[in-house]
Amino acid sequence: MEVVDRCRILAEFTEEPGFTTRTFLSPPMHAVHAQLREWMERAGMSVTIDPAGNIRGSYPSARAPAPRLLIGSHLDTVPRAGAFDGILGVVLGIALVEHLGGRRFPFALEVIGFSDEEGVRFGVPFIGSRALIGDIDAALLATIRDAITEFGLDPDRIGETAVTGDFLGYLEFHIEQGPVLDSLGLPLGVVESICGQSRMNVVFDGVANHAGTTPMSYRRDALAGAAEWISAVESEARGVEGAVATVGRLDVSPGAANVVPGTALSTLDVRHPIDEIRRDLVQRLLQSAERIAARRCLRVSSAQRLDQPTVEMDPALTAALERAVAKSAHPVHRLSSGAGHDAMIVARRMPAALLFLRSPGGISHHPDETVLPEDVSAALDAGLRFLEELERAHG
Amino acid sequence: MEVVDRCRILAEFTEEPGFTTRTFLSPPMHAVHAQLREWMERAGMSVTIDPAGNIRGSYPSARAPAPRLLIGSHLDTVPRAGAFDGILGVVLGIALVEHLGGRRFPFALEVIGFSDEEGVRFGVPFIGSRALIGDIDAALLATIRDAITEFGLDPDRIGETAVTGDFLGYLEFHIEQGPVLDSLGLPLGVVESICGQSRMNVVFDGVANHAGTTPMSYRRDALAGAAEWISAVESEARGVEGAVATVGRLDVSPGAANVVPGTALSTLDVRHPIDEIRRDLVQRLLQSAERIAARRCLRVSSAQRLDQPTVEMDPALTAALERAVAKSAHPVHRLSSGAGHDAMIVARRMPAALLFLRSPGGISHHPDETVLPEDVSAALDAGLRFLEELERAHG
Repeated sequence: MEVVDRCRILAEFTEEPGFTTRTFLSPPMHAVHAQLREWMERAGMSVTIDPAGNIRGSYPSARAPAPRLLIGSHLDTVPRAGAFDGILGVVLGIALVEHLGGRRFPFALEVIGFSDEEGVRFGVPFIGSRALIGDIDAALLATIRDAITEFGLDPDRIGETAVTGDFLGYLEFHIEQGPVLDSLGLPLGVVESICGQSRMNVVFDGVANHAGTTPMSYRRDALAGAAEWISAVESEARGVEGAVATVGRLDVSPGAANVVPGTALSTLDVRHPIDEIRRDLVQRLLQSAERIAARRCLRVSSAQRLDQPTVEMDPALTAALERAVAKSAHPVHRLSSGAGHDAMIVARRMPAALLFLRSPGGISHHPDETVLPEDVSAALDAGLRFLEELERAHG
Repeated sequence: MEVVDRCRILAEFTEEPGFTTRTFLSPPMHAVHAQLREWMERAGMSVTIDPAGNIRGSYPSARAPAPRLLIGSHLDTVPRAGAFDGILGVVLGIALVEHLGGRRFPFALEVIGFSDEEGVRFGVPFIGSRALIGDIDAALLATIRDAITEFGLDPDRIGETAVTGDFLGYLEFHIEQGPVLDSLGLPLGVVESICGQSRMNVVFDGVANHAGTTPMSYRRDALAGAAEWISAVESEARGVEGAVATVGRLDVSPGAANVVPGTALSTLDVRHPIDEIRRDLVQRLLQSAERIAARRCLRVSSAQRLDQPTVEMDPALTAALERAVAKSAHPVHRLSSGAGHDAMIVARRMPAALLFLRSPGGISHHPDETVLPEDVSAALDAGLRFLEELERAHG
C-alpha cells in the first residue's frame, strides 16, 4: 500500500534516531519537504514552500479563473510519535491527485502540509494553519522569527502565507486517534464538529498532619477530598452523553508517606461538542468540589486556563463528504472530534470538512500508531467521490 | 515557667538561623550539651557524653549498689521544628531532679538526652536509644562513624554506650503531637502501647490515552482507580476503632492535563495498637484495591516497605504511672501512640513507660508547636509521685 509505505518513509526523517520526532522547522523538515516535493511534482503539481514553512502543491483547474479546494494536514509530530498523525493527510492528498491521472475539475486543488500543528517546539500549536489564515501576530512572529530564518525562509514575508482569493473550502484526512471507529468496526468517520474544551486547575487545601497521631475523624486530608472529587468527575461525565472529563495531573504535598496531605492540586479537562453542555458540566463539577470541600472542612479554589468553543465543520461540505462516503459503499458515521485539528483553524477562513480514518486500538502519539491499508483505500475512494460531488455542485 | 523557658533557650541552638533545625551530632548539639550539663550539674548530677553523643546525668541512690531509673527523650529535631518535641522530656527530667531538693531514693536516677530519634541526618531514626541498648551494627556504625569523629567522640568506643547492670526501667515525657488530649481537655495521657505500622506502595497501572479522543467508557484511567481506592481506604479505616490509614503520596504519570493517567503510584501507611487488626485492615485494603482494579481493567501491584509490630509499654511501670497521675489529681486517660518514640526502642532492654503532655491544637513538627505551662507542672507533679510509687515498691 503506497500511501502507508510513504508515511513510513517520512517517519524516518527525525530529530531523534530510533524514533519519529519532528518539530516545527527542525532540520529533518528539509528532507520531508524534498520528498513531498518529488511526489507532488510527479503527480502534476507545482510546489512552493511558503514563509511559514508549509509545503503547498498546486494542481490547476480545468479553467481559469477558478476557485480552489485545499486538502491538507500537518507535517510535524509529537516527540516519539507514530508514522500517521498528520502526515497521512498530506500523503493521502497527494495520492488523491495522483489517482486523478490528469483529470481536471472546475476548481483548482492545493495540497498543503502544515509546518506545525502540535506546538511542541514553541508551546504554541497550529502555527502552520494560523499562518495560512493570516493569524500570526507580532508576538508569535517574534517567537518563531529565528527558527524561520535558520530554516532558510524569510520571516518578514510571513504575511504572504495568508490565503487570498476564492476558496471552495478545506478537506482534511486524519486518523481518529481514539477507539470509536475501531470499536464500531468502521473504516471512516465524518467529523461534524471539533469539541470545545475547558481547562481548569482545581486546588484542595486542608491541613498537613502526622499520619500516626492524627485520628481519622480529626483529619482535613486534601488528597482524600480530591479523590472523592475525582470519582465525582468521572461519574458526572459518564452521565453526560458525548462528554469527556479528565483529571490528568494531581500534585500532592507535602507528599510524604507518613504525612496526611495538606494540599492537592489537580487539573480538569472537559470536552463536549455543545459549548453550553460543556460549561454546564464544568459548573456542576466545580459545585461538586465545593460541596465535598465544605463537608470535609477543606478549602477549594479553581482557576480557568482555557475555554475554547466548539468549532462546527461546514454543513454543506460535510454533507458532500457524507454522500461521498456513502457512494464509496462504506457506512456513514458522524462523530465529533475530541482533539483539535488544523481544520478547526482553517474553518475560521473558509468552509472546512474533516474525515477520520480508523485508529486500530485507538493508539496514537505512540510508535505503535497505525492505519489499515483498506481504510486508506476507502478514504482515497471517498476523497475522489468528494471531488465529484463538488464538481457536480460547481460545474 | 522555667521548663518552658529552658526549652525555648535550647530551641535557639540550630543549624538554620530563624528556625530550629538540629540533627544528629550537628554543630549546635555542642551548645545543647553544654547548657544541659550546666543545669544537670546544678541539680546535683554528674554528667557524661557517651560515644553515641547521648548526654547522661547521674543522680545517686540513697544506698549502693542500687538499681537505676532512666528518664529521658531526644535532643535532635526535624527541620524547622518546634521547641518541645523530644527536648521537653530531657528538660523535664532535669527539673524533676531539681525539685527533689537533694532527696534520695532507693534507686539511682539517670537523665538521658538521646542524640538522634528523628533520623533526619542519615535517614536512620533512633540512633541514640539504639546505642543505649547495644543495637548499633557494623553497617550503621560505618554510616555514622565520621559524624561521631567530627563531633569529637570516638566511634570505636560506641559499645560503651550500651547499658549494663540493674535497671528499674525507663520513663519518657513527650508531647502527644496529636489532637486527642487537647480535644478531651486533658493535660496528660498514659501511653499503653506504641502502634505497629505497615507501609506499602500500591501501584495502579492502566493505559495512558488522549483526554479528548478517548470516551469515558473506553478508559483505563489509573488515577480514577486510585481515587476510588483512596476513598475506600478512608472509609475502611474509619470503620476500625483506633486505626489510622493514610495515602500520603500519589505520583501520577504521564501527569499531563490532557492525558488520561496511565499509572498512579500511591503509598499506604496503616497503624493500630493491635497487630492482628492492623494486618487484617491492610489485607482488606489490598483486596479492595484488587477489586477496584479488576472492575476497571487495571493492574494493581503492592510491595510492603515496613511491618513493625506494636510495642507494649511495661504493665507494672504503666500502672505506677497511672497511680501517680491519679494522685496528682489529674484525670487518668490511657491512649496509644501513633508515632514512634525512644521508649519503643528502650522497651526492648528494660521496662518502659511513656507519659504524654497535651499538644495544643495537635500541632507538632512546626514552629507553632507548644505546651501549656500548667500541663508541664502536672507532668512534673506526676513524675515526682511516680518516683514515690517506685520508692514504695522498691523501698
